Amino acid sequence: MSMKDMKDAQKMDMAGMQACIEACSACEQACTVCADGMMDMPRCASMCASTADVCNTMMRMMMRPAGYDMAAMMSMLETTIAMCKACAAECMMHADMREECRMCAQACMECQKACEAMLMSMKSMKSMSMS
Amino acid sequence: MSMKDMKDAQKMDMAGMQACIEACSACEQACTVCADGMMDMPRCASMCASTADVCNTMMRMMMRPAGYDMAAMMSMLETTIAMCKACAAECMMHADMREECRMCAQACMECQKACEAMLMSMKSMKSMSMS
Amino acid sequence: MSMKDMKDAQKMDMAGMQACIEACSACEQACTVCADGMMDMPRCASMCASTADVCNTMMRMMMRPAGYDMAAMMSMLETTIAMCKACAAECMMHADMREECRMCAQACMECQKACEAMLMSMKSMKSMSMS
Amino acid sequence: MSMKDMKDAQKMDMAGMQACIEACSACEQACTVCADGMMDMPRCASMCASTADVCNTMMRMMMRPAGYDMAAMMSMLETTIAMCKACAAECMMHADMREECRMCAQACMECQKACEAMLMSMKSMKSMSMS
Repeated sequence: MSMKDMKDAQKMDMAGMQACIEACSACEQACTVCADGMMDMPRCASMCASTADVCNTMMRMMMRPAGYDMAAMMSMLETTIAMCKACAAECMMHADMREECRMCAQACMECQKACEAMLMSMKSMKSMSMS
Repeated sequence: MSMKDMKDAQKMDMAGMQACIEACSACEQACTVCADGMMDMPRCASMCASTADVCNTMMRMMMRPAGYDMAAMMSMLETTIAMCKACAAECMMHADMREECRMCAQACMECQKACEAMLMSMKSMKSMSMS
Repeated sequence: MSMKDMKDAQKMDMAGMQACIEACSACEQACTVCADGMMDMPRCASMCASTADVCNTMMRMMMRPAGYDMAAMMSMLETTIAMCKACAAECMMHADMREECRMCAQACMECQKACEAMLMSMKSMKSMSMS
Repeated sequence: MSMKDMKDAQKMDMAGMQACIEACSACEQACTVCADGMMDMPRCASMCASTADVCNTMMRMMMRPAGYDMAAMMSMLETTIAMCKACAAECMMHADMREECRMCAQACMECQKACEAMLMSMKSMKSMSMS
């Protein structure tokens, strides 16, 4: 792997990280709003509350470079992807009836996408550093 | 699988869940204390801060049965295991010099163990429900 | 003020702090459980979610002695008292109908009491250090 | 108080609330970054960790209208103001030496200002509703 490739990978990574942080922050906010004032949809409220916590923890982990542990970080990305996927599926069921649910599903799907891109970027960096 | 076995599995699960919640709570507290007042060990402080957040999120997810999603829950258990493992390894390096680090490493290892037991219990429940 | 009095005050403070940390942790857990699976009581769920966050932040602040700021700490104690008081009042309204609400109201009242004792202890320490 | 005044007050409130939410979110992020990788400044790291938690809790409370309690909300605004003020003062001491501290102090001062404006707006709404 050339020096140029390595620098490109790091650059892409920083951009992906920033996108991921912003998507997590937006998703935490949309989920907190969505979980509030819910009537007759306890599963949606419960999932949104957990997704908000998961996204906040994911965001904070990315903002603490001094303690990066690749295994923990990649596992947390997988958790955020799984949680956002489940929450988006739940919120989509009543997106027509409640604006907060529609916006929350949207934020979850964007967060899932940003985390998937970040995870792919980390996996390719890992395989490059091993080769 | 007999009804008795199924009930035993559920009983074990609740006990494992409770042990896991308590271990996560204790680990969040030990990590928050450990991250504080750190000198010359930025990696330890950073990891402890993230472990505290991971454990708090794990604990809250377990306390929200209305929104349980098995895939997200199992992934979060794996994340907590990975994070506690990394944090315990880091804290053990200076457990001799600082009491907070020794206690934090201990809490991390106990939390890791409780989460591993919980994950194993969930996996066996999942395979039973499929068979 | 004698040396003995000063040591007694500090001792009381540590005991009060520990009681406060435990009450905050218990209150966060009771509120998280109470907020989950709620039907037709959106105000209760919303308040419980905020009380859980307030108690977690209060607990963490007390666990970070390296950065103690008396004004911020006393203000946060007042906030925790106000939030627990409001949440207990709300949960008490349906404590008869739902066990989670009864337990949450109880945890809120105990947390309020522990924070009031801590605040009083800090106020008397402050006035002693000024005299 | 005329209907027009009341609508103006509510409009100002929503704008202030939105500014406050954004300032809290930015402040949580700047504080999390600032607390990370700290060397020889344990007081700064500790305060930043608490300010991040305080701002996150403040932000979430504002996003949960279903459970608004005016006393708790105003007290939490006062806490956020006190915490941001203390954290900004600490970070300003070494803003020349570390870019993260300079940015964190800036975010704290902006968050303090947004919360002060919000608190003033709530106080005037409260006095209007009483007159």
